Amino acid sequence: MKLASYQWDGTDAFGVVVGDCVSDLSARWPTLRVALREAGVAALAAAHVAAPQRPLAAVRFAPVIPDAGKILCVGHNYESHRVETGRTKTGHPAIFNRYADSQIGHACGLVLPRVSSMLDYEGELAVVIGKAGRAIAAADALQHVAGYTCFNDASVRDWQWHTHQFLPGKNFPGTGACGPWMVTADEIPDPSVLHVCTRLNGQQMQSAPTADMLFPIPTLIAYISTFTPLSIGDLIVTGTPGGVGAKREPPIWMKAGDVVEVEIPGIGILVNPVVQEA
Amino acid sequence: MKLASYQWDGTDAFGVVVGDCVSDLSARWPTLRVALREAGVAALAAAHVAAPQRPLAAVRFAPVIPDAGKILCVGHNYESHRVETGRTKTGHPAIFNRYADSQIGHACGLVLPRVSSMLDYEGELAVVIGKAGRAIAAADALQHVAGYTCFNDASVRDWQWHTHQFLPGKNFPGTGACGPWMVTADEIPDPSVLHVCTRLNGQQMQSAPTADMLFPIPTLIAYISTFTPLSIGDLIVTGTPGGVGAKREPPIWMKAGDVVEVEIPGIGILVNPVVQEA
Repeated sequence: MKLASYQWDGTDAFGVVVGDCVSDLSARWPTLRVALREAGVAALAAAHVAAPQRPLAAVRFAPVIPDAGKILCVGHNYESHRVETGRTKTGHPAIFNRYADSQIGHACGLVLPRVSSMLDYEGELAVVIGKAGRAIAAADALQHVAGYTCFNDASVRDWQWHTHQFLPGKNFPGTGACGPWMVTADEIPDPSVLHVCTRLNGQQMQSAPTADMLFPIPTLIAYISTFTPLSIGDLIVTGTPGGVGAKREPPIWMKAGDVVEVEIPGIGILVNPVVQEA
Repeated sequence: MKLASYQWDGTDAFGVVVGDCVSDLSARWPTLRVALREAGVAALAAAHVAAPQRPLAAVRFAPVIPDAGKILCVGHNYESHRVETGRTKTGHPAIFNRYADSQIGHACGLVLPRVSSMLDYEGELAVVIGKAGRAIAAADALQHVAGYTCFNDASVRDWQWHTHQFLPGKNFPGTGACGPWMVTADEIPDPSVLHVCTRLNGQQMQSAPTADMLFPIPTLIAYISTFTPLSIGDLIVTGTPGGVGAKREPPIWMKAGDVVEVEIPGIGILVNPVVQEA
């Protein structure tokens, strides 16, 4: 099942995507996150049947979980990206934070901020938490996943590199694209068999199997939930493969008018045009 | 004016502290953050007069803003701490995130997690945002401050040092102490004349004037609001002076039964016992 958040006629909504339509469940629950918490995936499937339907072509996509409490991002989680960035191997995943208000949905403009010209793509698989927990064992971790989605953890590199802490370059508004929808975990029993591909203006820039993750998803959930409780609707953005623009010779920076796509077969294609901040 | 959040008889509340009592304004607004957003400081002062009064000795203090949207912490913002950590000078402040659910209030137990024995204190001045904004000019920054409070950004050092990103060691539940209250900005027109002191079991461990900050508060607000919008009730935790336990010879780690205090004259004394995670 595909679950999407969107705006319809200026109002926040969410629902189940089937074919060219998405149902509108916003009369029952205010957001997808709240619905996952209060009702769960099975209840959404049941509520979907009698709900109003909106044509996908007429909605404005929102990030899958606009009101996510925690968005935990993983740095250098593919060997190809670790090598290109010259980072030493670490015994644990590198975790940094993206605030929910930096997110945009599918087809919305990825924002090149006025203060930088170094906007870079990072195609990633993101995990949506569906069951809260602390100190979750790796063996139980996938039971805590509601579903999976595509994420473009677009990075303002100069601000990321101002100091050793990445947060400033990872939180500009309009730089975290998520969607078009999440696919529920029942359809993806093993997230390590997926493949992440990023294209810029139609040209493939990143491509890697999720099996290449240095710290696979159960390990990430176990590690993260040791130091912070995970709640329903939290996101774990699992890291990007090699091929980022910053490490090319010469570097490739995204500019207004570019179109960037993150494709994960079995989930979908997240497409965003790049726009200059007004 | 002093504003505190607390639990009274098991119920979340907040109010104005006068002498040995705190008013209970929770019938009017659900949290202090919401009250600052919907009503502002002057309205709280007016509402205080007719509100029920609770004896401070009988309340359980909560962190000043339990539901803070963003808690942005600053690393190495005092020269004495930068030198002891061996960090190179940076042209910008190092910013990392603490989640609101890692916070505790005054007099509550600071939690030494089961997975570590390396819990360290970091006494700091924290800023509570009182007016939302993006790309705030440094000259206007103090107009965006609702008040100031004491913060103990207690750090689980081995987890902080797992990789280059600090977040894991800065987010264990029960490690971010904040309080006892905030003092509104009208009483502290210039936060650069304050003094931060940390004591462990009565012995002074850190002591520095806030004038020693490498990036003063207006600079921090201007820098941070360039990459992320600031909202009412967000916190900026402005960094710790030299003298942390990790950099002593031999290192000093906090253990169950210790008592740690962060004093900022003009604001108050934040006292927390250290407890072992159950």
